[in-house]
Amino acid sequence: MVMDKEGVSSLEWRINLPNGTSETLVPRSGSICRMWLGLKCHVEGILLKARRFLEKAWKLAVDEPSKVIHCVKVGVALSLVSLFYYMRPLYDGFGGNALWAVMTVVVVFEYSVGATLSKSVNRATATFIAGLLGVGVHWLATQSGEKLEPIILGFSVFLFASAATFSRFIPSVKARFDYGAMIFILTFSFVSVSGYRIDRLFELSYQRFFTIAIGTSLCIMISIIIFPIWAGSDLHNLIYHNLEKLSDSLQGSVAEYFRDDGTESKEDCDSKVQGYKCVLNSKATEESMANFASWEPPHGRFNFGHPWKQYLKIGEAIRSCACCIETLNSFVYSEVEAPAHLKEHLKHLCMTLSSTSSNVLNELAVTLKSMKKSLKIDFLVEEMNFAVQELQKTLKTLPNHHIMRPPLTTQTTDDAPSGGPITEPIVPTLIEILPLATLVSLLIENAARIEGIADAVDELAGLAEFQPAIDKKTNQSQQAKNPSADNQDH
Amino acid sequence: MVMDKEGVSSLEWRINLPNGTSETLVPRSGSICRMWLGLKCHVEGILLKARRFLEKAWKLAVDEPSKVIHCVKVGVALSLVSLFYYMRPLYDGFGGNALWAVMTVVVVFEYSVGATLSKSVNRATATFIAGLLGVGVHWLATQSGEKLEPIILGFSVFLFASAATFSRFIPSVKARFDYGAMIFILTFSFVSVSGYRIDRLFELSYQRFFTIAIGTSLCIMISIIIFPIWAGSDLHNLIYHNLEKLSDSLQGSVAEYFRDDGTESKEDCDSKVQGYKCVLNSKATEESMANFASWEPPHGRFNFGHPWKQYLKIGEAIRSCACCIETLNSFVYSEVEAPAHLKEHLKHLCMTLSSTSSNVLNELAVTLKSMKKSLKIDFLVEEMNFAVQELQKTLKTLPNHHIMRPPLTTQTTDDAPSGGPITEPIVPTLIEILPLATLVSLLIENAARIEGIADAVDELAGLAEFQPAIDKKTNQSQQAKNPSADNQDH
Repeated sequence: MVMDKEGVSSLEWRINLPNGTSETLVPRSGSICRMWLGLKCHVEGILLKARRFLEKAWKLAVDEPSKVIHCVKVGVALSLVSLFYYMRPLYDGFGGNALWAVMTVVVVFEYSVGATLSKSVNRATATFIAGLLGVGVHWLATQSGEKLEPIILGFSVFLFASAATFSRFIPSVKARFDYGAMIFILTFSFVSVSGYRIDRLFELSYQRFFTIAIGTSLCIMISIIIFPIWAGSDLHNLIYHNLEKLSDSLQGSVAEYFRDDGTESKEDCDSKVQGYKCVLNSKATEESMANFASWEPPHGRFNFGHPWKQYLKIGEAIRSCACCIETLNSFVYSEVEAPAHLKEHLKHLCMTLSSTSSNVLNELAVTLKSMKKSLKIDFLVEEMNFAVQELQKTLKTLPNHHIMRPPLTTQTTDDAPSGGPITEPIVPTLIEILPLATLVSLLIENAARIEGIADAVDELAGLAEFQPAIDKKTNQSQQAKNPSADNQDH
Repeated sequence: MVMDKEGVSSLEWRINLPNGTSETLVPRSGSICRMWLGLKCHVEGILLKARRFLEKAWKLAVDEPSKVIHCVKVGVALSLVSLFYYMRPLYDGFGGNALWAVMTVVVVFEYSVGATLSKSVNRATATFIAGLLGVGVHWLATQSGEKLEPIILGFSVFLFASAATFSRFIPSVKARFDYGAMIFILTFSFVSVSGYRIDRLFELSYQRFFTIAIGTSLCIMISIIIFPIWAGSDLHNLIYHNLEKLSDSLQGSVAEYFRDDGTESKEDCDSKVQGYKCVLNSKATEESMANFASWEPPHGRFNFGHPWKQYLKIGEAIRSCACCIETLNSFVYSEVEAPAHLKEHLKHLCMTLSSTSSNVLNELAVTLKSMKKSLKIDFLVEEMNFAVQELQKTLKTLPNHHIMRPPLTTQTTDDAPSGGPITEPIVPTLIEILPLATLVSLLIENAARIEGIADAVDELAGLAEFQPAIDKKTNQSQQAKNPSADNQDH
C-alpha cells in the first residue's frame, strides 16, 4: 500500500497477455482521484448554493422584519390550535374532525390582515352556503328513491362544481370571491358525497362549520392583535414611495443629460435613476393590495370606507409618468451631441422644469404620507407650469436664439455669434437637436402627466377628507398676533 | 275597499280633534304606493344587475370556450372521484379519509396542465416529506417521556411551520414551491398533532398519501387527455399576439398623426391603436405562464426543455417597445401643428419607417407562430434600418430642406419656396417642430427597441432549434429544375 501510494508516478504495472505482448495497467488511483475530486466539487457546489440561498433568506429577514414576525405569528396560531386539539372536551365533541381547525389556520393565515379576513370570510360563508345547499340536495335525493339518489347527487356535484368553477373566471368574482368559490365546491362535494355514506349529515356540516369558525377567528384575532400588517397601510406606503422614486429618477436623468463631461460619476446616481423601473410593473401588486385593503376594518388613520380604489387611479397615473421617464431615459445617453450653445442655452430651463416637477412629486408624496391637504401644491403646480411656459417661450425664439438671449445663461459667447444676419452654420440641423428636442418635449409631456397625478391625489384628498396641513409659519405668526388661537389647536 | 280604491283622489278623511278643530288624514296609500314603487325599483335594479352579470358571463363563455371546457372537466373529475368514494372496497379501506381524494381534486385541478401538474407534484411531494418528518418527530417525542412529548411536538410544529412560512417569501421558492410549502405545514401539523391522539400514525400518513395520489393522478390524466390546455402554448400565443398588437398600434398611431384633416374617422382605428395598453401590463401573466409551462411535458411543437424563460426576455423587450409607443401616442393628438411643408416633407419617410417597423414586428410574430426561422427577417431589419438612415439623412439637411428636396415626395410645391436665399420665415421655431421632432425621434428609438425584440426572438430560435422556413418561391423553382427534390419534402 505504501509503495502503491509513493510510487504511483514512477512505477508501472504490466500484465503479460496470452499472445505474448504485455499491456501497461493504468493506475486506478487516478480515476478514483478524479471521481473524488468530482464528488468534492459537486458537494462544494451544493454547499455554495445552499449558503447563497441562506444568505438571501437572511438578507430578506433583515430587510423586512415584518415577514419574520408573520412567520412567528403563524407558528403561534398553529401551536394554539393544536392546544385546542389536545384539550379533551373539544376532541370528544368533534373527534377527528377537530383537525379541520388546524387545517383552517394553515390555509387562511395570510401576510396581511385584509388577506386573512378575505380568506376567512370567504371560507366561512362558502362553507355555510354549501353546507346548507348540500344538505338540501341530499334531502331531495333521499326523497326520490334509491335508484335516483346517486344520479341526483352525481349530477348536482357536476352542475354546481362546473358553475362555481366558471364563476372563478369572471373578473369581478375572481377579484373578491375566488377562494370562496373553491371552498364552496369543496364543502358541497364533501357534504353531498359523504351524506350518501354516513347518516349523520347535519352533524358533519355543523362540525365542519364550527371547526372552521374556531380556526378563522383565531387567525383573525392573532393577525389583528399581534403586530398587525395592514394591506391598506402597505398600499399607502407603496404609492408614496413610488412617487419619491419617480421624483429621484426624473431629476437624476435630466441632471445626467446636462452633466459636464468632466465629472463622469455615473454609478453613484445610477440606482436612483433606475427607480422608475420597479414602478412600471407594480400594477398587479397594487390591485391585490387594494382588494385586501377593502376587507380591512378602520385602522390607524384609515377610516371605514377609505377610498382604496382611488389609489389604483393614482397608481395608473404614476405608471403613465414612469413610462414617459423610461422613454426619456433612452435619450439621456444619446450619442448625438446637441450644439453646445443650444444645450447650454436650454440647460437652465430644463433643470428648472425637472426640479419643479420633482418638487410637485415630492409634495404629493408628502401629502399622502401626512394625509394632510397640502397648502403648497397649487403653488408648486403653478411653478411647474410656469417653467413649462418659460421653456415654450424660449423654444418659440429658437433656433434664432440670438434675437433674445436670456441674461441668465452663463455660457461663453464664442461658440455663437451674438448678432448680425443669420449665417448658415448657426441654424442647427434637425438631426443635431433631435435628442435635446425630444428630451424637452418629454419633459413637457411629463409635466402634464404629473398634473394628472396631482389631480388624482387631490381627488383622493377630497374623498378621504384630508384635513388641510397647518402651515407652521402662518401658524406661528398668527399665534404671535392672537395668543388665544393656541387653544384651537389642542 | 272598492270606495277606498276608487275615491282616493276625490274623498277626504277628516278627524275631529278634542280642541274643536279637524285635521285631514293624508291617505296612506300614497306612502304605500311610494314604498311599493321603491321596492319595485330596488328589485328591478337587482334584476338588471343580475342580467348584466349573466350577460358578461355568457360573453366570456362565448369568447373563450376553453374556459367552459375546463369547467366541464372539473365537473367530470369530481363526479369520477365521487364514484371512487361510492365504491365499497375503497371506502372500506380508507373510511372517512377517502374524502381527501375529493378534496385533492377540488384543490389541485387548475386551468392549464402545467398549473395542475405543478400543484399535484407539490402536493404529493410535500405530503410525502412532511408525513415522514411528522412520523419521525412523533417517534422522537414518544421516546422522550410523557412530560416532554407535548412540548417537543408543540415546539416542532412551531419551528417547522414558521420556517416553511418564511420560505414562501423567498422569490425562488415562491415561484415554484409556494403551494408545496403550505401543504408541508398542513400535513406536518396533521400528522404530529393527530399522532398524539390516535395510535395509528403510519396508517393515517399512508392513507393521506394514497388518497392524494389517487386525486392528483385523476386530475393529471383528465387535464392531459380531455382537451388539454397547455400553459406553454398559451404563453407562446400571448407573445405573438402581443407582437401583432404592437405592430397595429404603431402603424395606426403614425397614420393618425399624418392623416389629412379631411378624413377624420378616429373611432374605427382607435381600438387597434390602443392595443399596446394590454401589452404594458402583461408581465405578471407571462411570468406565471412561463413557470407553469416549465412543469409541462413535451406537447405539440414544444420539446422537453423548451426555453420558456426566453419568452420572458422577449416579453420584456416587447413591453419596452410598448412603453415607447405609449409615449409616442401622446404626441399624435398634439395641438401644436408642425409647419405643413415640413410635415409633408417627412410624412413619406415616417410612414415608410413605421411600415417597415411593423413589417419586422409582423414577421417576428410569424416566426413565433410557425416556429420556423424566418428567411426574410434579416432583410426586413435591414430595410427598417435603411428607413432610419434615410430619415436621419433627411434630418441632417433640415430645416434647410430646400437644399436637397428628395424626389420621392409628392407634395405641392407652393407652400415652400423652391430656391433662393434663406428667408427668416422658412426656418420654423423649435416649438413648432417639437411634436413632429419628438415623433420622429421616438420612431427611431422604437426601431432600435424592435431590433432588441428581433435579437431576443433570434436567440429563442437558436435555443429551441427552429428549422429554417421553406421559401415557397425558391422551393418551387428548385422543384421545377430538379423534380427529384420533391421526395425530400415528404
